[in-house]
Amino acid sequence: MVEHTTDIRVRYSEIDRLGTFYNSRALEWFEVGRTELLRSLGMPYPQMEAQGVCLPLITAHVDYHRRAGYDERLRIATRLAAEGRARLRFDVAITHADAGHPVASGYTVHAVTAQDGRPARPPAWLMEVVRRAMEG
Amino acid sequence: MVEHTTDIRVRYSEIDRLGTFYNSRALEWFEVGRTELLRSLGMPYPQMEAQGVCLPLITAHVDYHRRAGYDERLRIATRLAAEGRARLRFDVAITHADAGHPVASGYTVHAVTAQDGRPARPPAWLMEVVRRAMEG
Amino acid sequence: MVEHTTDIRVRYSEIDRLGTFYNSRALEWFEVGRTELLRSLGMPYPQMEAQGVCLPLITAHVDYHRRAGYDERLRIATRLAAEGRARLRFDVAITHADAGHPVASGYTVHAVTAQDGRPARPPAWLMEVVRRAMEG
Amino acid sequence: MVEHTTDIRVRYSEIDRLGTFYNSRALEWFEVGRTELLRSLGMPYPQMEAQGVCLPLITAHVDYHRRAGYDERLRIATRLAAEGRARLRFDVAITHADAGHPVASGYTVHAVTAQDGRPARPPAWLMEVVRRAMEG
Repeated sequence: MVEHTTDIRVRYSEIDRLGTFYNSRALEWFEVGRTELLRSLGMPYPQMEAQGVCLPLITAHVDYHRRAGYDERLRIATRLAAEGRARLRFDVAITHADAGHPVASGYTVHAVTAQDGRPARPPAWLMEVVRRAMEG
Repeated sequence: MVEHTTDIRVRYSEIDRLGTFYNSRALEWFEVGRTELLRSLGMPYPQMEAQGVCLPLITAHVDYHRRAGYDERLRIATRLAAEGRARLRFDVAITHADAGHPVASGYTVHAVTAQDGRPARPPAWLMEVVRRAMEG
Repeated sequence: MVEHTTDIRVRYSEIDRLGTFYNSRALEWFEVGRTELLRSLGMPYPQMEAQGVCLPLITAHVDYHRRAGYDERLRIATRLAAEGRARLRFDVAITHADAGHPVASGYTVHAVTAQDGRPARPPAWLMEVVRRAMEG
Repeated sequence: MVEHTTDIRVRYSEIDRLGTFYNSRALEWFEVGRTELLRSLGMPYPQMEAQGVCLPLITAHVDYHRRAGYDERLRIATRLAAEGRARLRFDVAITHADAGHPVASGYTVHAVTAQDGRPARPPAWLMEVVRRAMEG
């Protein structure tokens, strides 16, 4: 199982009036995790889109565990899995980079489509990358 | 069962490069639905927070059904339910306001806490509002 | 001089930890004002882009006057002007809808380009609309 | 003159349907630059706010020069200056990290206030940091 981790700092623009991150930011951080995981697999997402392969979301799920304030360092750990033959799934766990406390966790499920949103068969190179990622 | 609906237009700032809304915007629209539902129940959320009652998210779940482009009118339908004694749940369905096609649906589950994030017992007036909402 | 006004409510997602709107939201609200002004002139922006005319920003300027909190109603007043032959300018004033206090004001200057970002000559119908808007 | 630079990657959530960053993101990136500059001066902004010193924006100005697409690396160069006795000014230039092309530039002017938004006299330690920053 391949797991990729990347660190970010919480931006002021991401904080709400209770001093913790606004809930939708978790999904933006999930996307940072996906981007860095795909890059680490030698398949940067911009390059995938340039080849006409898009990964629109079918489902997103987030469980919120703890607050995270402005400027705190967070660690995003992301794993890739196939879900059936035509879907990809990314599992994500966000923790405080220093203390290791869980902040948010969840997953996103993605279809594979052409740029116009029509379902596309995942290209062989993509499924090969996924297969290798799952074997670790 | 009380269901409140409110309409919005998709903003340019909410669109991604495929021409549909970026996935995290759904959670921001869910919040617009919650805000308007609570107002319709005579319990505006700013007033709740002023009384020291916060509703931080425990879980968020979104299923994505269709694209929605810049300036399209969307309808947000929101229902409130209690989940056990200490949690609230909002179920949300977003559709194209004109055609009625589903765009995104899902739910959020909320704890009831004080401003500092500590669990609080839901005040009687809140549970009374929820009870009435569920009876319709 | 044509001035178009539209009202919004401040969303929870737009508030920072001081309880007022995060500074960049002003530019998103300016865009709401532009969108509604262009619609009122019979020239919805999505329709303009469908005709291959884009209005990317060259400059944005915001002066911040007062706080505006979650759920407060704001009024966005927008005016359109030509700036030379090839640029458009929108002047915006955001106020508290009820009290009338100024919240933020400023302007954006836009080039007229094709979809690929290349400068384009503003089409006659666009300049005609602008001319009429300026005459009021 | 102290100038601090920090690099970011453009996030998918920051891109609009023309494939370049949405205009308001520039102000969020300006804030990333301010945060890192203040940290480099030994005065992290969260620590400042903990001491009751806030720096709300009075003015923001952005000039847009070029597009920047998803996943491109940008360099944010930020300089600090005093503006009179009671205001701070940050000048920012964002460029493509690799090619060096200008992407956006501008400035923000900040008041010094207490947490409640009331004007405050800038503390001596703050003005000392600013003085040193300006001397370089």
